[in-house]
Amino acid sequence: MAKFTVQHEELRAFAQALLEGAGVRTDRAALVAANLIFGNLRGVDSHGMQLLPSYLEQMDRGLTDGAEDGEMLSESGATMLYDARNGLGAVTADRCCEHVIRLAQEHGLAFAVARHANHFGAAAFWGRRISDAGLIGFAFCNASPIVPPFQAKQARLGTNPICMSTPGPHDTSWLLDMATTTVAANRIFKAWHNREPEIPAGWAMDKEGRPTTSTDEAYHGLIMPLGGYKGTGLAVMVEILSAILAGDAMSVEVGGLRIKDRPMNVAHSFLAIDPARFLGAGEFDTRMSKLTNYLHSATPGAGFDEVLIAGEPELRFEKKRRVEGIGLGPGEWERLLTWAQKYNVEPPRYNTEEHG
Amino acid sequence: MAKFTVQHEELRAFAQALLEGAGVRTDRAALVAANLIFGNLRGVDSHGMQLLPSYLEQMDRGLTDGAEDGEMLSESGATMLYDARNGLGAVTADRCCEHVIRLAQEHGLAFAVARHANHFGAAAFWGRRISDAGLIGFAFCNASPIVPPFQAKQARLGTNPICMSTPGPHDTSWLLDMATTTVAANRIFKAWHNREPEIPAGWAMDKEGRPTTSTDEAYHGLIMPLGGYKGTGLAVMVEILSAILAGDAMSVEVGGLRIKDRPMNVAHSFLAIDPARFLGAGEFDTRMSKLTNYLHSATPGAGFDEVLIAGEPELRFEKKRRVEGIGLGPGEWERLLTWAQKYNVEPPRYNTEEHG
Repeated sequence: MAKFTVQHEELRAFAQALLEGAGVRTDRAALVAANLIFGNLRGVDSHGMQLLPSYLEQMDRGLTDGAEDGEMLSESGATMLYDARNGLGAVTADRCCEHVIRLAQEHGLAFAVARHANHFGAAAFWGRRISDAGLIGFAFCNASPIVPPFQAKQARLGTNPICMSTPGPHDTSWLLDMATTTVAANRIFKAWHNREPEIPAGWAMDKEGRPTTSTDEAYHGLIMPLGGYKGTGLAVMVEILSAILAGDAMSVEVGGLRIKDRPMNVAHSFLAIDPARFLGAGEFDTRMSKLTNYLHSATPGAGFDEVLIAGEPELRFEKKRRVEGIGLGPGEWERLLTWAQKYNVEPPRYNTEEHG
Repeated sequence: MAKFTVQHEELRAFAQALLEGAGVRTDRAALVAANLIFGNLRGVDSHGMQLLPSYLEQMDRGLTDGAEDGEMLSESGATMLYDARNGLGAVTADRCCEHVIRLAQEHGLAFAVARHANHFGAAAFWGRRISDAGLIGFAFCNASPIVPPFQAKQARLGTNPICMSTPGPHDTSWLLDMATTTVAANRIFKAWHNREPEIPAGWAMDKEGRPTTSTDEAYHGLIMPLGGYKGTGLAVMVEILSAILAGDAMSVEVGGLRIKDRPMNVAHSFLAIDPARFLGAGEFDTRMSKLTNYLHSATPGAGFDEVLIAGEPELRFEKKRRVEGIGLGPGEWERLLTWAQKYNVEPPRYNTEEHG
């Protein structure tokens, strides 16, 4: 299968040009493009350029308003409620992070919630946006209902991610960004497209809600909440922290990137905590290094030769992809070219080689 | 195997009398006793009366100071750092919850961290302490290192619980209290004591860090982080929110209830968020009912006849045990009687019957 590989800076510029082609103002287009390329660089292709055609289509259908910054609905103490007014998800998240950083600097911690929002790409981008200001950053978002609660066979929840990012140098700091399902949906799709007959236990259920390791049954079945009732609990935690508090769509009411008749209407939320209210200057970093050293020093289990911390696998992808470029599958490439043609945007230079 | 069954009120009074026998002031003893019985009533026996002999032993050895309330180290904006000064865990948690509630009412949310603390029993007790004040309550605590990080075979982390409790009537509200391992360690011990040869996949690893379903290998092996790297990530999240910010013992530095030569030195943390800063009066409850209705209405999967929300299984235990009493195993009963004799406390009335 041919892969089209593009250097990340050129791919970023291409994304920005496509968004500008759709009428998005330069600063907003640059922000969304940076958010998408961040996903690809870190190996999280489900939250990279692969999302852009859906964003463009949502704007084209009037389901996302590319010219909207949103507006503050209320600020009260260390809390804030924002109305995204259906703007691009990254634009909403950016404005909310700015406010939550300001409020946390003032109060020691802060919490911001946005309603009527769209997909904000990789949550890690927003956790890091906050931790780059020296704060511990959290990002949450509800999502399209594709996951059944524990013991059920009907979808009621999204993959509802939890992200936490710690301040410090990017190449050593700890950064967790996880869906509350055992694996992301696209790992099951990928196994199916690659014609792998079996997936590991715990990933999925068949359409009757029975745990399965058959890739085919999983593909036509349901994604499994992480560890059963605990994953469901965490997904509901995220739903409460985002949709419930936002007064926005929840559970089956939520739209999606592949739902064409109504806006996505997800809710974002962001929590920031200032470690300087607890520890002396530099102490947070020192203590984090100590903790990650403890983790790294654990003897690897059978079949492994090292122990990694959250964010480290993504960091390795990033180092590699910054040099080697970002690969897109032929279907993904074609979809982007269609939009490039529509908006008269020059496609970026690419390398192609045959894989597998 | 004989079970000794005691009515919960009598067991609570017995716990309080034992603590008073150890020299603990009445109000503190009553608090710890209520915390332990809360665990038993909800079916979480690992965090019930079964802990009391360890608490008494820790005090007897001078590792816990039963006369200590702790002291505020700093209050800054909506944050607070508390020194437990090695007091009883429930006493520390109670004082911190009081402060975090006050601060959240003032700022919209608040975060309190306690250092040099002891075991606080079931985290759910503290989440609910906060949610009973009309706030969304979170409780976190690090714990003795018995869990390896993902890909390792050496323990570095505790079962580090995450608890979130929502305001509302106790018999319908959502309450999550979960260890960040697939199951609590004592479920593996129980299977081993009951001579069950097999446990489900995903619970444990053998001592080389290989996933196992052999109860014997698991008993002599390692507890598995929930879903692999995600459970490790969540455990580290809790370690950061508690131990790192507290400036306290972390990872392998942490003591434990079965470690006799040094204090436990865990850290607690509590987060409170006021939904009234986001939603109108009554709206939070209405929206939570709507969400739980969506969850309950999902068609059960094969092998199940209902879908439950977080806290519901524990609520069922509570309804039953309030009537039928709380059962203690013969070993647990004997340990309590030894302390009763030492402190000249009358044991409670009990029923006994032969099981299995």
